[in-house]
Amino acid sequence: GFAHLDHHRALRTGFPEVIWGPGKTVEQIAQIMATMRLHSSVVMATRIEPQVYAQLQYRVPGLHYYQAARISAIAPVNLQPQYPGTIGLLSAGTADLSVAEEAAVTAELCGFRVMRLWDVGVAGIHRLLSYRQAIAQMDVLIVVAGMEGALPSVVAGLVDSPVIAVPTSIGYGASFGGLAPLLTMLNSCAAGIGVVNIDNGFGAAILAGQILRT
Amino acid sequence: GFAHLDHHRALRTGFPEVIWGPGKTVEQIAQIMATMRLHSSVVMATRIEPQVYAQLQYRVPGLHYYQAARISAIAPVNLQPQYPGTIGLLSAGTADLSVAEEAAVTAELCGFRVMRLWDVGVAGIHRLLSYRQAIAQMDVLIVVAGMEGALPSVVAGLVDSPVIAVPTSIGYGASFGGLAPLLTMLNSCAAGIGVVNIDNGFGAAILAGQILRT
Amino acid sequence: GFAHLDHHRALRTGFPEVIWGPGKTVEQIAQIMATMRLHSSVVMATRIEPQVYAQLQYRVPGLHYYQAARISAIAPVNLQPQYPGTIGLLSAGTADLSVAEEAAVTAELCGFRVMRLWDVGVAGIHRLLSYRQAIAQMDVLIVVAGMEGALPSVVAGLVDSPVIAVPTSIGYGASFGGLAPLLTMLNSCAAGIGVVNIDNGFGAAILAGQILRT
Amino acid sequence: GFAHLDHHRALRTGFPEVIWGPGKTVEQIAQIMATMRLHSSVVMATRIEPQVYAQLQYRVPGLHYYQAARISAIAPVNLQPQYPGTIGLLSAGTADLSVAEEAAVTAELCGFRVMRLWDVGVAGIHRLLSYRQAIAQMDVLIVVAGMEGALPSVVAGLVDSPVIAVPTSIGYGASFGGLAPLLTMLNSCAAGIGVVNIDNGFGAAILAGQILRT
Amino acid sequence: GFAHLDHHRALRTGFPEVIWGPGKTVEQIAQIMATMRLHSSVVMATRIEPQVYAQLQYRVPGLHYYQAARISAIAPVNLQPQYPGTIGLLSAGTADLSVAEEAAVTAELCGFRVMRLWDVGVAGIHRLLSYRQAIAQMDVLIVVAGMEGALPSVVAGLVDSPVIAVPTSIGYGASFGGLAPLLTMLNSCAAGIGVVNIDNGFGAAILAGQILRT
Amino acid sequence: GFAHLDHHRALRTGFPEVIWGPGKTVEQIAQIMATMRLHSSVVMATRIEPQVYAQLQYRVPGLHYYQAARISAIAPVNLQPQYPGTIGLLSAGTADLSVAEEAAVTAELCGFRVMRLWDVGVAGIHRLLSYRQAIAQMDVLIVVAGMEGALPSVVAGLVDSPVIAVPTSIGYGASFGGLAPLLTMLNSCAAGIGVVNIDNGFGAAILAGQILRT
Amino acid sequence: GFAHLDHHRALRTGFPEVIWGPGKTVEQIAQIMATMRLHSSVVMATRIEPQVYAQLQYRVPGLHYYQAARISAIAPVNLQPQYPGTIGLLSAGTADLSVAEEAAVTAELCGFRVMRLWDVGVAGIHRLLSYRQAIAQMDVLIVVAGMEGALPSVVAGLVDSPVIAVPTSIGYGASFGGLAPLLTMLNSCAAGIGVVNIDNGFGAAILAGQILRT
Amino acid sequence: GFAHLDHHRALRTGFPEVIWGPGKTVEQIAQIMATMRLHSSVVMATRIEPQVYAQLQYRVPGLHYYQAARISAIAPVNLQPQYPGTIGLLSAGTADLSVAEEAAVTAELCGFRVMRLWDVGVAGIHRLLSYRQAIAQMDVLIVVAGMEGALPSVVAGLVDSPVIAVPTSIGYGASFGGLAPLLTMLNSCAAGIGVVNIDNGFGAAILAGQILRT
Ligand SMILES: Nc1ncnc2c1ncn2[C@@H]1O[C@H](COP(=O)(O)O)[C@@H](O)[C@H]1O
Ligand SMILES: Nc1ncnc2c1ncn2[C@@H]1O[C@H](COP(=O)(O)O)[C@@H](O)[C@H]1O
Ligand SMILES: Nc1ncnc2c1ncn2[C@@H]1O[C@H](COP(=O)(O)O)[C@@H](O)[C@H]1O
Ligand SMILES: Nc1ncnc2c1ncn2[C@@H]1O[C@H](COP(=O)(O)O)[C@@H](O)[C@H]1O
Ligand SMILES: [Mg+2]
Ligand SMILES: [Mg+2]
Ligand SMILES: [Mg+2]
Ligand SMILES: [Mg+2]
Ligand SMILES: [Mg+2]
Ligand SMILES: [Mg+2]
Ligand SMILES: [Mg+2]
Ligand SMILES: [Mg+2]
Repeated sequence: GFAHLDHHRALRTGFPEVIWGPGKTVEQIAQIMATMRLHSSVVMATRIEPQVYAQLQYRVPGLHYYQAARISAIAPVNLQPQYPGTIGLLSAGTADLSVAEEAAVTAELCGFRVMRLWDVGVAGIHRLLSYRQAIAQMDVLIVVAGMEGALPSVVAGLVDSPVIAVPTSIGYGASFGGLAPLLTMLNSCAAGIGVVNIDNGFGAAILAGQILRT
Repeated sequence: GFAHLDHHRALRTGFPEVIWGPGKTVEQIAQIMATMRLHSSVVMATRIEPQVYAQLQYRVPGLHYYQAARISAIAPVNLQPQYPGTIGLLSAGTADLSVAEEAAVTAELCGFRVMRLWDVGVAGIHRLLSYRQAIAQMDVLIVVAGMEGALPSVVAGLVDSPVIAVPTSIGYGASFGGLAPLLTMLNSCAAGIGVVNIDNGFGAAILAGQILRT
Repeated sequence: GFAHLDHHRALRTGFPEVIWGPGKTVEQIAQIMATMRLHSSVVMATRIEPQVYAQLQYRVPGLHYYQAARISAIAPVNLQPQYPGTIGLLSAGTADLSVAEEAAVTAELCGFRVMRLWDVGVAGIHRLLSYRQAIAQMDVLIVVAGMEGALPSVVAGLVDSPVIAVPTSIGYGASFGGLAPLLTMLNSCAAGIGVVNIDNGFGAAILAGQILRT
Repeated sequence: GFAHLDHHRALRTGFPEVIWGPGKTVEQIAQIMATMRLHSSVVMATRIEPQVYAQLQYRVPGLHYYQAARISAIAPVNLQPQYPGTIGLLSAGTADLSVAEEAAVTAELCGFRVMRLWDVGVAGIHRLLSYRQAIAQMDVLIVVAGMEGALPSVVAGLVDSPVIAVPTSIGYGASFGGLAPLLTMLNSCAAGIGVVNIDNGFGAAILAGQILRT
Repeated sequence: GFAHLDHHRALRTGFPEVIWGPGKTVEQIAQIMATMRLHSSVVMATRIEPQVYAQLQYRVPGLHYYQAARISAIAPVNLQPQYPGTIGLLSAGTADLSVAEEAAVTAELCGFRVMRLWDVGVAGIHRLLSYRQAIAQMDVLIVVAGMEGALPSVVAGLVDSPVIAVPTSIGYGASFGGLAPLLTMLNSCAAGIGVVNIDNGFGAAILAGQILRT
Repeated sequence: GFAHLDHHRALRTGFPEVIWGPGKTVEQIAQIMATMRLHSSVVMATRIEPQVYAQLQYRVPGLHYYQAARISAIAPVNLQPQYPGTIGLLSAGTADLSVAEEAAVTAELCGFRVMRLWDVGVAGIHRLLSYRQAIAQMDVLIVVAGMEGALPSVVAGLVDSPVIAVPTSIGYGASFGGLAPLLTMLNSCAAGIGVVNIDNGFGAAILAGQILRT
Repeated sequence: GFAHLDHHRALRTGFPEVIWGPGKTVEQIAQIMATMRLHSSVVMATRIEPQVYAQLQYRVPGLHYYQAARISAIAPVNLQPQYPGTIGLLSAGTADLSVAEEAAVTAELCGFRVMRLWDVGVAGIHRLLSYRQAIAQMDVLIVVAGMEGALPSVVAGLVDSPVIAVPTSIGYGASFGGLAPLLTMLNSCAAGIGVVNIDNGFGAAILAGQILRT
Repeated sequence: GFAHLDHHRALRTGFPEVIWGPGKTVEQIAQIMATMRLHSSVVMATRIEPQVYAQLQYRVPGLHYYQAARISAIAPVNLQPQYPGTIGLLSAGTADLSVAEEAAVTAELCGFRVMRLWDVGVAGIHRLLSYRQAIAQMDVLIVVAGMEGALPSVVAGLVDSPVIAVPTSIGYGASFGGLAPLLTMLNSCAAGIGVVNIDNGFGAAILAGQILRT
């Protein structure tokens, strides 16, 4: 076959391989899902556009679509958190939603509890500060921000839990496709921040999960 | 002569030409200062290292040195603000001091009142918030920050006066000589921010002065 | 809801939140506009393509479209300047028009008087110089330029009012999406220039407004 | 004073502020250390060159120097781990040593247990694989690598604990000061990696500490 | 004519000129192929999309399409290796397939024997190691990888044959169109690697062929 | 020998090879000069620092030093223009002097007449305009500028002769070593400009010479 | 009107303003052409796609389309060279044709004689060398090349006339939209080369014309 | 110890580990050499400055210094080629010498025969063409070039052996530390070129050796 699945990964790293949708045909995704579900109760694919799901649903029985997250998955009904702890998920602007939801849904499908706080960017700092107590109680934080990407710096100065920063490609001009928030997050004057790739909500969720299971 | 002084600039733009120190010999600076003082009561040069001043002071009578700002100037004793209004000058970290002082001293030499607030970076947001009222009363703000450069975004969300953002080259690694805070400031999700070149405290002061005289 | 409106912003910063169109559905924009008009007499959205307005007009009563500016807004009939002073708006080429109009219409909707001077780029410097007197009377200047972006430097050397420089993505090849005029403006040998993001006519207008209200 | 210490940070984030050496005079560092030791039993400064320590030791009683880490600190004799868990610290090449030691010593001074594995880069993969079992038992891993920075990807595929990747500026030519390993780490095909700034051993240790205390 | 064919190239460099498809009309490609087949038994064009082939096949008799490789060629039936030695072709992920196949098919059409190993990326290093013996027997290796591009470094540490590294544009965010794996490969800590342009499977095959004929 | 002199170049291109000083020992430069003077009446080396000349003058009889241009040359006494026409040489700021003089002295040593106009940058456009008539009479123009590099655009709009633009590395921050003026000049909205490398006064002079001999 | 035509430009610089097509509606182009033809016998617009011309021809009487050059113009029948001298136009590959033709047609419409040599790239250096004599007789050369852009360096070493180098965006991967050949041309080890913007065939022709009229 | 030597590498890859000098103390280099000579008859270190060798020679018996190559090595007297075939080594300019010699000496120390051709850059193409026959007889070519780096493209079009291209950091301005020739080589229109890192003469020699032993 065209793919060399890594079924041992679940054993080795604690998470199943997840399908990266872009560049794969509907047929290929369906086939990989069929193979994967033999080994795993949760099977998921990211970056699935609505029109891809529209075709995929007829080929893969029991498939669900999380539209805001662009994730398509087969998962048990009434999926419940399997691990203790909560991931706090913050996003700076409404436009960062799809990346933030990619992180949220990935985390939930992997068995973690998530608390969402959307649209709390630094240009109106009172919005963030009004949630200060809730944020301080999270066990790990994922902070999603585009444009100038300043939110993780402010958050990391408020809490004593690890912060995972996700730059997004939301912005224009001198954002250079997310380079601006990426550099912002890497240069944060607040220590305790780990950065993932631009728009990589998925990777942030996996890292948060690994932290919670530590 | 090697320089083509622009004495009309004072008439046209309201500020005298200022000497840019780097790349000029002590002899050249002294000579330009001698010519300039015939036309202006305040004569100043920026980016003057201590060892340059050490030699310059014997050649230029009445010369003063503002060490933290690396500015050398001839100015009337008891220089007083000549314009109404106050420039609020904020800096994020102690390392940004010399750029912030370049802005402060330039503004003072040009006849403006300055209020300084150093070391109020976003990683400890309570420091900034404790000065919130003072900041809100400024007529124009200059915000100096290196590393991730997030301070102007937060400040601009708190006030209704214009904010001039000065990125500094303070930082390392993915700061790329100040590129990171420069991009942060240009992409700010808070509107009402004008950005100047990396480390350009001088230019920020001139712009603030032009705003106050509007 | 998906958005966390910042109604206090008008009180804090003097300007209402404005909707950034790209990436939002017609439905979302209509909904946010409905909420906003409860708090503000002027409601506006930027970067609205004609086909988006074509649908939006049926959902939002009293909506107007400023085509050249790509702005859609609800505004009182016979909107008059509410603040003293005039913003001089210069653009270098005809292709910079939509960014320049974004600045102009934003400023007018926010209550400021605007004087437009289009297509006065530096390759034919006499065009600019013929307006020299008019330009010198403006209280603040917004200068929009793509390609090499040299216009703000020349303008700032002619006047004693603050200059806001807006680089545009107009150009090709080594323009790198507006990077060239952005760097030009940041490195200007004329002091007194504040730069905003590439194509950010909106931000320039807000900054100009804040300067006029100083 | 020139610095605005953030003593509450220990309470808020669980770690004391740490002095960043570059750009500060010996006198300034000594003074900040004197103030800090009133609030904290451990006082530390990073990026301290041997010649700086040589002068500093006479001004700050009880000061120790960790040469490989370029850290200078006042710390209790017989400092013992105060938290459960172990940080596994891997470095790819001998040249990455000072960054890796900055991480190791910071972690130890903050009360964490560290296991060091130096010089296990991917060009001789058997070196890494021979420690596979030891690595799998770590609670969190810090992986330091310059040049092409591939080590974190391989490590993250072997373990189920969180991996903190530290790119270093070790390299030449197309390394562009550490940009190459930074991009490598951000684009890792293995999920579960959080990246910090180039050469930021300190930040990696703080993040690892926050993970262990989760 | 619009093209200046270099028929001597076969004599000079041992390989015929190959048609680069993008930017050429179907008519132009057909015409160049007609001219080329007068001089060469194998005629090939790269980067041919399926819809281009769909039209081309009616104009060029005996034309074949290698879909995964996006190559269209006229070649003898039962094409057999003409040179001794084998090229080992490894790819890191399923998404790198089309670049890897461009290399494989080019090599086969030029008369070389190829062994394919797909989807053996470093995040699951056991996949690569399980083929260790086969890899060590290859005479030259082409290693194709996108995202972080770490595979060639690991491979080059395992073998004593030359390694040709092909970065691909597969990835997103800080991959910057393949810049990330390109830098990774250039900075490899393992010596003995020659790098070709991003996505240049064709060039890698030609280089491998030249090595085998040495 | 270590150098492979290209004596035919004078015949082919009309100019002798010129020695590039950096990275060569005094001994090597002296030796190359000795060889060159056998074939040419003018022998020159660029980028020669004063201390290099100080040693070189004792080894090379008849050697002259043009300090501002950092050029060292053997040339006939009373060197006169050998070609008709005049090269107009403009520079934007005093700091661009050494690059502008490199162009001027190279042109003069190659037999061309030069008219110098220093320090006529765009921030004080009246300085340039006051020389308008003189500039319009030049046969070819070399325009040297650092910082934002806008001068060539303005000049090219004023004249009908070819303009050679030389960006300099003079500037700081977002100048990125001369990248800013380089991009400015390449993107000029005025046509008729040819750009040379950053600080390449030498190359500009050669190109101007070739134009005059056309 | 929306455009501020610069009719004096013809008088000042010797060439009429030329319309830049992209971003203009058919209606706008037609209108500007109507105005321009009142002042000039030749009216031209560049970057006109076939479908734009298809509409434009009905609105602008006497309009011609030069397809390979993507230029649309009104020009006298039997346009003859008006100036002495010949422009040699070389291109490296067939894909560079449209840029090279933009230069050729612009030059011809402006009254210059052009000799075309297509597809003489450096990978088959004998093609170039076979035209050596013809090239040496040109008065000025325009050399168009994409990919690695090496052709101008070789050409400039063969001739004593000025060389105008035009990098094109033809290429892929590490070409970065033409950055690679642009840098190549700027760094040429052969002096006497002036570089224009990526794909700027138009600007090269204007510069060549200005050189020929010198 | 601080280093984790990879003695198996010789067995695995056919070449011993080689010491990278920069960042290591004389003491460290001497110690590693002592250990290495127990396993290998040839021990070598690259990037050794003369002053480092001056100290090293007293600590390491039998140590030789290859000044132009900046290599220090212990090698048998009368080292003879151990492998069939010849590596042709070409360099474009005299300034590229140290990189070219690094390649040459490495290859010779590893047992290969080398033919050197220095200073045959493309600006005087006849120099290269005069060696055409010799070049065509080489089994593999290493081509070293800085500035615009065009030499490998021309060479690869002349021969049917593999070409290894080495960009150097020789150049200035828009060379950006060797980025320009690196991009040139990666984008070569001639196939059959493998590129190594900027200034990586060592890596080129190892690759050439691996090709010769294929
Ligand atoms: N610190 C500074 N940053 C930016 N521009 C400056 C600074 N100091 C002086 N200048 C500008 O540099 C110009 C003088 O340059 P120069 O003629 O080289 O001395 C003045 O017109 C100032 O506008
Ligand atoms: N897939 C490819 N990647 C890189 N170069 C190619 C590819 N296919 C063809 N070429 C080269 O492109 C040249 C042909 O370009 P053209 O004359 O535009 O068809 C040939 O000499 C090949 O060396
Ligand atoms: N200032 C300069 N800028 C650019 N190129 C130069 C300069 N001076 C000399 N050259 C060129 O460098 C070449 C000599 O290099 P080299 O053989 O290293 O001395 C000559 O052919 C000149 O074309
Ligand atoms: N193909 C082209 N490349 C570069 N500049 C051009 C081109 N075509 C027209 N121009 C320039 O663009 C200007 C017209 O721009 P616009 O006013 O937007 O039509 C003219 O003054 C020309 O100098
Ligand atoms: Mg919002
Ligand atoms: Mg602080
Ligand atoms: Mg125009
Ligand atoms: Mg090692
Ligand atoms: Mg896979
Ligand atoms: Mg000046
Ligand atoms: Mg061709
Ligand atoms: Mg030479």
